[in-house]
Amino acid sequence: MPDALPDPRSPAAQALPAGLLDALGGILGPRGVVTDPADLQPHLSDWRGLYRGASPALLRPASTAELAAAMRLLHAAAVPVVPQGGNTSMVGGAMPDEGGRQVVVSLARMNRIRDIDPLDMTMVAEAGVILKTAQDAAAEAGCLFPLSLSAEGSATIGGVLAVNAGGNNTVRYGNARELMLGLEVVLPDGQVIEGLRRLRKDNTGYALRHLFVGAEGTLGFITAAVLRLFPRPRATALALCAVADEDAALSLFRRFRDRDESSIRSFEYMSGAGMDLVLQHIEGATLPLAERARHYVLVDLASSRPDADLRGLMEGVLEEALEAGEVLDAALPESEAQSANLWRLREEHAEAQKRAGASVKNDVSVPVSKVPEMIRRCSAALEALIPGSRPVPFGHLGDGNIHMNLAQPDGVDGAAFLARSHDIMDAVNAVVRELGGSFSAEHGIGRLKTDMLAEWRGGAEFDTMRRIKAALDPQGLMNPGKVLP
Amino acid sequence: MPDALPDPRSPAAQALPAGLLDALGGILGPRGVVTDPADLQPHLSDWRGLYRGASPALLRPASTAELAAAMRLLHAAAVPVVPQGGNTSMVGGAMPDEGGRQVVVSLARMNRIRDIDPLDMTMVAEAGVILKTAQDAAAEAGCLFPLSLSAEGSATIGGVLAVNAGGNNTVRYGNARELMLGLEVVLPDGQVIEGLRRLRKDNTGYALRHLFVGAEGTLGFITAAVLRLFPRPRATALALCAVADEDAALSLFRRFRDRDESSIRSFEYMSGAGMDLVLQHIEGATLPLAERARHYVLVDLASSRPDADLRGLMEGVLEEALEAGEVLDAALPESEAQSANLWRLREEHAEAQKRAGASVKNDVSVPVSKVPEMIRRCSAALEALIPGSRPVPFGHLGDGNIHMNLAQPDGVDGAAFLARSHDIMDAVNAVVRELGGSFSAEHGIGRLKTDMLAEWRGGAEFDTMRRIKAALDPQGLMNPGKVLP
Repeated sequence: MPDALPDPRSPAAQALPAGLLDALGGILGPRGVVTDPADLQPHLSDWRGLYRGASPALLRPASTAELAAAMRLLHAAAVPVVPQGGNTSMVGGAMPDEGGRQVVVSLARMNRIRDIDPLDMTMVAEAGVILKTAQDAAAEAGCLFPLSLSAEGSATIGGVLAVNAGGNNTVRYGNARELMLGLEVVLPDGQVIEGLRRLRKDNTGYALRHLFVGAEGTLGFITAAVLRLFPRPRATALALCAVADEDAALSLFRRFRDRDESSIRSFEYMSGAGMDLVLQHIEGATLPLAERARHYVLVDLASSRPDADLRGLMEGVLEEALEAGEVLDAALPESEAQSANLWRLREEHAEAQKRAGASVKNDVSVPVSKVPEMIRRCSAALEALIPGSRPVPFGHLGDGNIHMNLAQPDGVDGAAFLARSHDIMDAVNAVVRELGGSFSAEHGIGRLKTDMLAEWRGGAEFDTMRRIKAALDPQGLMNPGKVLP
Repeated sequence: MPDALPDPRSPAAQALPAGLLDALGGILGPRGVVTDPADLQPHLSDWRGLYRGASPALLRPASTAELAAAMRLLHAAAVPVVPQGGNTSMVGGAMPDEGGRQVVVSLARMNRIRDIDPLDMTMVAEAGVILKTAQDAAAEAGCLFPLSLSAEGSATIGGVLAVNAGGNNTVRYGNARELMLGLEVVLPDGQVIEGLRRLRKDNTGYALRHLFVGAEGTLGFITAAVLRLFPRPRATALALCAVADEDAALSLFRRFRDRDESSIRSFEYMSGAGMDLVLQHIEGATLPLAERARHYVLVDLASSRPDADLRGLMEGVLEEALEAGEVLDAALPESEAQSANLWRLREEHAEAQKRAGASVKNDVSVPVSKVPEMIRRCSAALEALIPGSRPVPFGHLGDGNIHMNLAQPDGVDGAAFLARSHDIMDAVNAVVRELGGSFSAEHGIGRLKTDMLAEWRGGAEFDTMRRIKAALDPQGLMNPGKVLP
């Protein structure tokens, strides 16, 4: 990093109000203001390659006070800002638009874990802490921070809270929202909400923390959070099952839930199509079952009680389900390596789809009871819409959240397939809506789904959201064009 | 109930805008508009006897559509309204003021359980459903609705959500907020938010449902909710323990948490002073221990797993704690009747204090690790403030939520004691604030604690709450004078 502000500045940077960058440099220091186009580049396109933005500058405050001071200046100058965490959004939520006026703000330098308390079972983490780092820090303190998702090596605490991220363990521990006790927030005008309370119960006025979680940076910056920790599991059991059909997958979930709901850590569905892509494209991935199936379930049980005998529980339930014809075959790993392989079959679904060509993602949810019907009806609708395409449903059956993705037909131009993205999403959404579901279960709205939000949540709900946005960010400077169109 | 509108109307009713009551009668029918002062009376004083209000009319809509239509009229006429559930608020949250202009609205007639789905584990209940009725309906469907509190025979679903009620099982299942998946809301202007979604995951814009929960009716009416159900416990274990001191109580909590956190359903602390009051004033209450102690803990374990052997777990942990000198004695009930007696010793704390004379309630919370210090320091401060008074701390140690109550000295005038309520609350709050706690853990703000809210949550937090209130209720017609001063 250079000691002085980069020079010459880009045309976009020069278009900012006179003296603003110098003033920001005075607050944030030379490492805190990036205007070199080469350094900016990684921050101007998203992980999925859906958007490419332009920006005059990237700001990198090192503390809440620095961010607050910078926001006071930016607010006074009416400069729009785009918060960016690990830049792993699936919906373009952290991308500036193409206009070149929106300043990107990264809290990557605010990456301290301020405190871990194994007695209170809390961690105070700054927004820039990488999710994996938070997990590791909790483990070192003898605790568990259960939020876990594919992007955990890049996603930040600020980002996962801003989008209320879900992931693999939500059936047991809830989304990011449920893992948060208090927030520190910098408002659009630079005011600071000092809400880092470590309380399990605190009924003192409106639940502002729940408003900022899931607001995707459109109401302010989450700069730090009090996170809930849990005792580490001391007993676990894992199984990959081939199941007869979608109904059998749901029925198996019920069997485990009825036996011991508190031990279900993950309950993941995978289609045969998705598993085939993983086995084909991911090096070293192997299926530990006698033969391939059309439907799979990955069941992960965990308990903090060492004598929980989850292996016994697992075998007992699977035996019943085998007898009932719901489970066709099952593999229970005998080693850490085998367990890791099973989880890899699930985790590599996104990567395998990427390598197989173009695919369209649908992060939808329905009531848990409707998952089988949703998968069947969406698959049929998609195959009818684009003959030869391959529906690849997979995801968190225990939460009713299935990624109802569609892979391109073999030998077809990917771009032509992607040009039909909106038709594909519409076909899935039509079924999901009939079943009382949601068009965005865990990825949020970002820039990709603002029209859907306006359509699905129209009327009083949308009106209320707009009123809140106008009340907290009257100039519309926080992450413009995201969430609300 | 009379077939026609009551006549003669009270002067207050006559002071309403001309024709308004007739128009409301046209919408709500003769049972829906109550203006007879005798019928109004029970709705104009609160359970604790802190407030006595005046009101021109009580409205009793029978459906969401009726309420919405009535609110459109009231909004147009700028008439303030006060939602009232079971009228069990501890902070005067459901009381109209003395001015006589505020119309009380009860949703008691909206008392249908619209749906129970044991597959999705959800219940759709209208606001007027009594909490106990909801619990019973869940049980009939083979499920558990875990929210449980002393007022459950009167409190309504709308009320417990409006205040984000806590209770005895929150250490395992969370507050009312965590038990809610979706809400139907009537806004101040009569618009209806149709948010009764039964989804475990739904990241579609601002979490409005979390804003209305805990807003105490100041932003709109919660008219119905999708509630989460759970598998019914099939194994339980209960114990009443005499413990050495406050630290021993906390240490015992940690022992259970480390062994199996998911089985802890309640972990309640009681002081010797409170137990003495219960044994003295509550008929039939008996202590199943060899001698009285200065500190008690009630531990309640539950699991949906029939073979969980919670009795073994309970005995194992208590044995360790006995050896460590933390637990002095323990009683494990051998029958339903004995279990009920143990719970009664805890549940009758409020009633026993009422019978013993005047008392001042402090519903405070601190980080769990600070509970012993909080109890000790508050008790000392209170005894110094009012010599002869008896601190009666009891409550939900597992959540860090202790009711730090103070009973009047013997032989002193109750009114004179109560005149010092604010000094007493201030003394407790000073300690709680130093320990990073909250002045209202589960009872909310209501009318009693608006000044505290302004003082504790001043600055950006308070400013943000005011902006939200102004955005959603610009005329300030919803439950005026509650939450925000």
